[in-house]
Amino acid sequence: MAPQATTQGGPGADASGCCPLYHEAIELIGRRWTGAIVAVLLQAERPMRFSAIAAAVPQLSDRLLSERVKELEARGVVARDVLPGTPVRVEYSLTPMGRSLAPALDELAQWARRWL
Amino acid sequence: MAPQATTQGGPGADASGCCPLYHEAIELIGRRWTGAIVAVLLQAERPMRFSAIAAAVPQLSDRLLSERVKELEARGVVARDVLPGTPVRVEYSLTPMGRSLAPALDELAQWARRWL
Repeated sequence: MAPQATTQGGPGADASGCCPLYHEAIELIGRRWTGAIVAVLLQAERPMRFSAIAAAVPQLSDRLLSERVKELEARGVVARDVLPGTPVRVEYSLTPMGRSLAPALDELAQWARRWL
Repeated sequence: MAPQATTQGGPGADASGCCPLYHEAIELIGRRWTGAIVAVLLQAERPMRFSAIAAAVPQLSDRLLSERVKELEARGVVARDVLPGTPVRVEYSLTPMGRSLAPALDELAQWARRWL
Protein backbone atom coordinates (compact mmCIF):
# COMPACT_ATOMS: atom_id res chain seq x y z
CA MET A 1 0.00 0.00 0.00
CA ALA A 2 1.34 3.39 -0.92
CA PRO A 3 1.45 6.06 1.75
CA GLN A 4 -1.81 8.00 1.69
CA ALA A 5 -0.45 10.89 3.59
CA THR A 6 0.39 13.00 0.59
CA THR A 7 -3.06 13.18 -0.96
CA GLN A 8 -4.42 16.02 1.16
CA GLY A 9 -3.34 19.32 2.63
CA GLY A 10 -2.92 19.75 6.32
CA PRO A 11 -0.27 20.22 8.97
CA GLY A 12 2.39 18.19 7.30
CA ALA A 13 1.50 18.24 3.64
CA ASP A 14 4.39 17.87 1.25
CA ALA A 15 5.90 15.28 -1.02
CA SER A 16 7.20 13.18 1.87
CA GLY A 17 3.99 13.42 3.88
CA CYS A 18 5.71 15.34 6.63
CA CYS A 19 6.47 19.05 6.18
CA PRO A 20 9.92 19.95 7.47
CA LEU A 21 8.78 23.38 8.71
CA TYR A 22 5.90 21.95 10.70
CA HIS A 23 8.21 19.30 12.09
CA GLU A 24 10.73 21.96 13.08
CA ALA A 25 8.02 24.07 14.72
CA ILE A 26 6.54 21.29 16.79
CA GLU A 27 9.90 20.11 17.98
CA LEU A 28 10.96 23.66 18.83
CA ILE A 29 7.84 24.33 20.88
CA GLY A 30 7.64 20.80 22.24
CA ARG A 31 11.11 20.77 23.80
CA ARG A 32 10.91 20.10 27.50
CA TRP A 33 9.60 23.29 29.24
CA THR A 34 9.72 25.46 26.13
CA GLY A 35 5.94 25.45 25.74
CA ALA A 36 5.52 26.43 29.38
CA ILE A 37 7.97 29.33 29.08
CA VAL A 38 6.26 30.65 25.95
CA ALA A 39 2.85 30.35 27.66
CA VAL A 40 4.06 32.36 30.65
CA LEU A 41 5.44 35.10 28.41
CA LEU A 42 2.24 35.14 26.33
CA GLN A 43 0.20 35.73 29.46
CA ALA A 44 2.47 38.47 30.77
CA GLU A 45 1.36 42.04 30.22
CA ARG A 46 4.92 43.34 30.34
CA PRO A 47 8.44 42.03 29.75
CA MET A 48 9.50 39.70 32.54
CA ARG A 49 12.70 39.35 34.48
CA PHE A 50 14.36 35.97 34.62
CA SER A 51 13.34 35.54 38.26
CA ALA A 52 9.68 36.20 37.41
CA ILE A 53 9.68 33.55 34.69
CA ALA A 54 11.38 31.15 37.10
CA ALA A 55 8.71 31.85 39.73
CA ALA A 56 5.93 31.18 37.22
CA VAL A 57 7.35 27.77 36.28
CA PRO A 58 8.51 26.58 39.70
CA GLN A 59 9.35 23.03 38.65
CA LEU A 60 11.97 24.28 36.18
CA SER A 61 15.60 24.71 37.29
CA ASP A 62 17.36 28.02 36.65
CA ARG A 63 19.97 26.22 34.59
CA LEU A 64 17.41 24.71 32.23
CA LEU A 65 15.37 27.92 32.09
CA SER A 66 18.50 29.80 31.07
CA GLU A 67 19.25 27.25 28.36
CA ARG A 68 15.71 27.33 26.97
CA VAL A 69 15.51 31.12 26.98
CA LYS A 70 18.79 31.30 25.07
CA GLU A 71 17.47 28.84 22.48
CA LEU A 72 14.26 30.84 22.08
CA GLU A 73 16.26 34.05 21.73
CA ALA A 74 18.50 32.42 19.11
CA ARG A 75 15.39 31.32 17.17
CA GLY A 76 13.88 34.80 17.28
CA VAL A 77 10.94 33.84 19.51
CA VAL A 78 12.10 35.72 22.61
CA ALA A 79 13.70 39.18 22.86
CA ARG A 80 16.18 39.99 25.61
CA ASP A 81 16.40 43.63 26.64
CA VAL A 82 19.12 45.01 28.84
CA LEU A 83 17.95 48.15 30.64
CA PRO A 84 20.67 50.56 31.76
CA GLY A 85 21.04 51.30 35.48
CA THR A 86 22.90 49.97 38.48
CA PRO A 87 22.54 47.10 38.47
CA VAL A 88 21.40 46.61 34.89
CA ARG A 89 18.03 44.91 34.50
CA VAL A 90 17.49 42.20 31.95
CA GLU A 91 13.96 41.59 30.73
CA TYR A 92 12.47 39.04 28.38
CA SER A 93 9.46 39.28 26.13
CA LEU A 94 8.07 37.56 23.06
CA THR A 95 8.91 38.94 19.65
CA PRO A 96 6.11 39.26 17.05
CA MET A 97 7.16 35.77 15.92
CA GLY A 98 6.71 34.51 19.48
CA ARG A 99 3.37 36.28 19.97
CA SER A 100 2.14 34.67 16.77
CA LEU A 101 2.24 31.32 18.52
CA ALA A 102 -0.80 32.32 20.56
CA PRO A 103 -3.50 30.82 18.29
CA ALA A 104 -1.72 27.46 18.07
CA LEU A 105 -1.07 27.30 21.81
CA ASP A 106 -4.61 28.40 22.63
CA GLU A 107 -5.98 25.61 20.45
CA LEU A 108 -3.68 23.14 22.14
CA ALA A 109 -4.77 24.34 25.59
CA GLN A 110 -8.41 23.87 24.58
CA TRP A 111 -7.62 20.37 23.38
CA ALA A 112 -5.84 19.61 26.66
CA ARG A 113 -8.78 20.86 28.75
CA ARG A 114 -11.18 18.74 26.78
CA TRP A 115 -9.23 15.52 26.43
CA LEU A 116 -6.60 15.20 29.16
CA MET B 1 8.71 41.78 40.96
CA ALA B 2 5.92 39.27 41.33
CA PRO B 3 5.22 36.93 38.45
CA GLN B 4 2.74 38.54 36.10
CA ALA B 5 1.83 35.33 34.44
CA THR B 6 -1.21 34.62 36.57
CA THR B 7 -3.11 37.79 35.81
CA GLN B 8 -4.60 36.76 32.48
CA GLY B 9 -6.13 33.73 30.82
CA GLY B 10 -4.40 31.96 28.00
CA PRO B 11 -2.67 28.71 27.19
CA GLY B 12 -1.22 28.14 30.62
CA ALA B 13 -3.44 30.06 32.97
CA ASP B 14 -3.63 28.73 36.49
CA ALA B 15 -2.36 29.56 39.93
CA SER B 16 1.23 28.67 39.07
CA GLY B 17 1.19 30.47 35.71
CA CYS B 18 1.59 27.20 33.87
CA CYS B 19 -1.37 24.88 33.39
CA PRO B 20 -0.47 21.24 33.96
CA LEU B 21 -2.84 20.00 31.23
CA TYR B 22 -1.42 22.35 28.60
CA HIS B 23 2.07 21.38 29.68
CA GLU B 24 1.18 17.70 29.39
CA ALA B 25 -0.35 18.25 25.95
CA ILE B 26 2.57 20.13 24.48
CA GLU B 27 5.09 17.65 25.78
CA LEU B 28 3.01 14.73 24.50
CA ILE B 29 2.72 16.20 21.01
CA GLY B 30 6.20 17.67 21.04
CA ARG B 31 8.02 14.42 21.70
CA ARG B 32 10.48 13.64 18.98
CA TRP B 33 8.53 12.51 15.83
CA THR B 34 5.17 12.36 17.58
CA GLY B 35 3.92 15.50 15.85
CA ALA B 36 4.99 14.13 12.49
CA ILE B 37 3.20 10.82 13.06
CA VAL B 38 -0.02 12.56 14.11
CA ALA B 39 0.21 14.85 11.05
CA VAL B 40 0.57 11.88 8.71
CA LEU B 41 -2.45 10.14 10.26
CA LEU B 42 -4.49 13.37 10.13
CA GLN B 43 -3.84 13.64 6.40
CA ALA B 44 -4.68 10.03 5.69
CA GLU B 45 -8.14 9.31 4.35
CA ARG B 46 -8.14 5.76 5.71
CA PRO B 47 -6.42 3.82 8.49
CA MET B 48 -2.75 3.22 7.69
CA ARG B 49 -0.54 0.21 8.04
CA PHE B 50 2.67 0.53 9.97
CA SER B 51 4.69 0.35 6.76
CA ALA B 52 2.72 3.21 5.22
CA ILE B 53 3.34 5.46 8.21
CA ALA B 54 7.02 4.51 8.09
CA ALA B 55 7.14 5.40 4.38
CA ALA B 56 5.56 8.78 5.06
CA VAL B 57 8.17 9.68 7.70
CA PRO B 58 11.27 8.22 6.08
CA GLN B 59 13.77 9.68 8.56
CA LEU B 60 12.16 7.80 11.43
CA SER B 61 13.42 4.32 12.37
CA ASP B 62 10.92 1.47 12.70
CA ARG B 63 11.95 1.00 16.31
CA LEU B 64 11.17 4.57 17.26
CA LEU B 65 7.98 4.63 15.18
CA SER B 66 6.81 1.53 17.02
CA GLU B 67 7.56 3.13 20.38
CA ARG B 68 5.78 6.37 19.51
CA VAL B 69 2.72 4.62 18.12
CA LYS B 70 2.44 2.56 21.31
CA GLU B 71 2.63 5.71 23.42
CA LEU B 72 -0.05 7.39 21.32
CA GLU B 73 -2.24 4.29 21.58
CA ALA B 74 -1.75 4.21 25.37
CA ARG B 75 -2.77 7.89 25.56
CA GLY B 76 -5.89 7.32 23.48
CA VAL B 77 -4.72 9.38 20.51
CA VAL B 78 -4.23 6.48 18.11
CA ALA B 79 -6.41 3.38 17.60
CA ARG B 80 -4.90 0.07 16.54
CA ASP B 81 -7.19 -2.28 14.63
CA VAL B 82 -6.35 -5.88 13.94
CA LEU B 83 -8.20 -7.11 10.85
CA PRO B 84 -8.78 -10.86 10.61
CA GLY B 85 -7.28 -12.75 7.70
CA THR B 86 -4.11 -14.58 6.84
CA PRO B 87 -1.89 -12.88 7.62
CA VAL B 88 -3.73 -10.52 9.95
CA ARG B 89 -3.52 -6.84 9.02
CA VAL B 90 -2.87 -4.20 11.61
CA GLU B 91 -4.01 -0.67 10.86
CA TYR B 92 -3.65 2.58 12.72
CA SER B 93 -5.89 5.61 12.76
CA LEU B 94 -6.56 8.62 14.97
CA THR B 95 -9.28 8.38 17.60
CA PRO B 96 -11.69 11.32 17.99
CA MET B 97 -9.24 12.63 20.60
CA GLY B 98 -6.46 12.43 18.05
CA ARG B 99 -8.52 14.02 15.25
CA SER B 100 -9.30 16.89 17.60
CA LEU B 101 -5.66 17.91 17.44
CA ALA B 102 -6.20 19.14 13.88
CA PRO B 103 -6.96 22.81 14.69
CA ALA B 104 -3.92 23.17 16.95
CA LEU B 105 -1.60 21.46 14.48
CA ASP B 106 -3.02 23.46 11.56
CA GLU B 107 -2.34 26.69 13.44
CA LEU B 108 1.17 25.53 14.21
CA ALA B 109 1.76 24.63 10.56
CA GLN B 110 0.59 28.11 9.53
CA TRP B 111 2.96 29.65 12.06
CA ALA B 112 5.81 27.51 10.74
CA ARG B 113 5.14 28.52 7.12
CA ARG B 114 5.10 32.17 8.06
CA TRP B 115 8.01 32.33 10.48
CA LEU B 116 10.47 29.50 9.89
